Amino acid sequence: MALRWLDPPAGPAIGLVDQTRLPAIENEVICRDVPALVDAIRRLVVRGAPLLGIAGAYGVALAAARGEDVPAAAAALEGARPTAVNLSWGARRALSAFASAASDPDPRARRDAPAAALAEARSIAADDARACDEMAAHGLTLVPEDARILTHCNTGSLVTAGAGTAFGLALAAHRAGRLAMLWVDETRPLLQGARLTAYEATRYDMPHKVLADSAAASLMAAGEVDLVAVGADRIAADGSVANKVGTYSLAVLARYHDVPFVVVAPVSTIDFGTADGSAIVVEHRPEHEVTHVAGQPIAPAGSAAFNPAFDVTPPGLVTAIITERGVIQPVTAGNLRTLGAGT
Amino acid sequence: MALRWLDPPAGPAIGLVDQTRLPAIENEVICRDVPALVDAIRRLVVRGAPLLGIAGAYGVALAAARGEDVPAAAAALEGARPTAVNLSWGARRALSAFASAASDPDPRARRDAPAAALAEARSIAADDARACDEMAAHGLTLVPEDARILTHCNTGSLVTAGAGTAFGLALAAHRAGRLAMLWVDETRPLLQGARLTAYEATRYDMPHKVLADSAAASLMAAGEVDLVAVGADRIAADGSVANKVGTYSLAVLARYHDVPFVVVAPVSTIDFGTADGSAIVVEHRPEHEVTHVAGQPIAPAGSAAFNPAFDVTPPGLVTAIITERGVIQPVTAGNLRTLGAGT
Repeated sequence: MALRWLDPPAGPAIGLVDQTRLPAIENEVICRDVPALVDAIRRLVVRGAPLLGIAGAYGVALAAARGEDVPAAAAALEGARPTAVNLSWGARRALSAFASAASDPDPRARRDAPAAALAEARSIAADDARACDEMAAHGLTLVPEDARILTHCNTGSLVTAGAGTAFGLALAAHRAGRLAMLWVDETRPLLQGARLTAYEATRYDMPHKVLADSAAASLMAAGEVDLVAVGADRIAADGSVANKVGTYSLAVLARYHDVPFVVVAPVSTIDFGTADGSAIVVEHRPEHEVTHVAGQPIAPAGSAAFNPAFDVTPPGLVTAIITERGVIQPVTAGNLRTLGAGT
Repeated sequence: MALRWLDPPAGPAIGLVDQTRLPAIENEVICRDVPALVDAIRRLVVRGAPLLGIAGAYGVALAAARGEDVPAAAAALEGARPTAVNLSWGARRALSAFASAASDPDPRARRDAPAAALAEARSIAADDARACDEMAAHGLTLVPEDARILTHCNTGSLVTAGAGTAFGLALAAHRAGRLAMLWVDETRPLLQGARLTAYEATRYDMPHKVLADSAAASLMAAGEVDLVAVGADRIAADGSVANKVGTYSLAVLARYHDVPFVVVAPVSTIDFGTADGSAIVVEHRPEHEVTHVAGQPIAPAGSAAFNPAFDVTPPGLVTAIITERGVIQPVTAGNLRTLGAGT
């Protein structure tokens, strides 16, 4: 996992593998308070739906360990990135564990409230690692022999406590001798595919090739893609999927070329409080992410940019949602409800 | 035009605005012989279908001015980039003008054969400038009021002898007070949109925004695109369009969202000798164009890349092809034939 808890004397603190600098530089950012963690979340030092949930919970535990205003810390963390529902889910779970202990009639329980928040964060991480294995096991039933899987963004061990969501499925296929090729969308503007997914694929010796996002259509037209597998940042109650910009584009292309399009995500990603895709607030990120690459300008100084972080894929374009509790297919509000709530 | 002929004493030579370094650096590359020009074409110092036709013709004129083997020079130029039909078309036109003069019974005509090749190159450039105006005039009939036009790659005055093909149409719309927004796909891997189209849009003070290629689908889903306009590198006899990778992706997305998708290209881009899309050879370019940006690695050293320069859009996805001789709609082999041959 790309996040670790540091106890005293080094801590209390949260150590984060700086994902903005991988694969060139492997650097750990140490967050000693919640504002530092909020900044790291905003700058995408730490990113990815499941890991954001874990980070939210550890952030609450950090505020508790420091004796700070824990509900205020949870609120600050929840607001760091508006689209990522797991962040708020993780922060609230740790806050709830803390609040429950802090209001206990037993003074020893009250004294241990910070430890209760930390235990909850650790439990979320352990659950997530197990969920990765379960999603991969469920998802493998949808992967053919000699599969050529196309993926977008980064959904592996950098963003979960386990092997990953969509990447975890590809890795399971690889380990089962069933992965002929992992096509890695580079994922502009921040290149999480080229930088991070290719880095993880290299580490596991998986057959893979990086491509410009706009070349995916050529691969599909040539019959070179058997399955598109992506993660999710938020799934609405109707099955609409908010995920890294470009996901919706792939879903339309997959439908046009009759390629199955699956979303691999833990149940915590489903936000039953969001009715449908139109209710999902899509975060717009700074223009320089598009107009600059690695600090260098690629567009003229006078040019503005359009930079949504996510797009929303309607449920009708999603072949299946693969969760740790089973495969939802077809993707409908009724089928999603059978999973129960995320908590 | 981003190409100029230099007479003695500075020449004979061809000066090219180095498009690989724009907009950061405005530098002219001087090609004093055909191998230098072939190298510049391969490295994309000079690029874009119409300008490649002009460059092919001037290259033949350069070989003729130097007293070299002119047919061999034409063959070398034609082979520099396999997909670009205009290159071969321009080289052959100048070769034909040269050969005709060189086989004249009149010794004065034979002596003037190099001048005949140069005159033909100049005539091709003049025709291209006029064609740009004519394409824009025909295309304007398809542009609504307050149009939001999305374009891909670079198709303006850097790659033609005039205002451009698809970009020329957007510029004409701007001058007619009809352009609300030009959405500029950045066009990975070589970023011709962000670097060059945005540069030209800034020069003409056109309202524009740059976006990651994969964000175009979000714009279409939000109803923010009224027209997609692109150029072409080669059009087969059945109307299949080879153009910068990502074009086919846009065509599928445009169809899904009911947005008109038009190709703006001079008749010289139509290759009646290529029956259909399957007969178009798609050039694959070096992997480092994907794995590196501005010389910096973005993917790990062990990662390979898939890097087709072009993709092929079938005629059924093209709403109209706009040429200097009129608008072809619907795009069928029969309708294309009414344009006559490219020469």
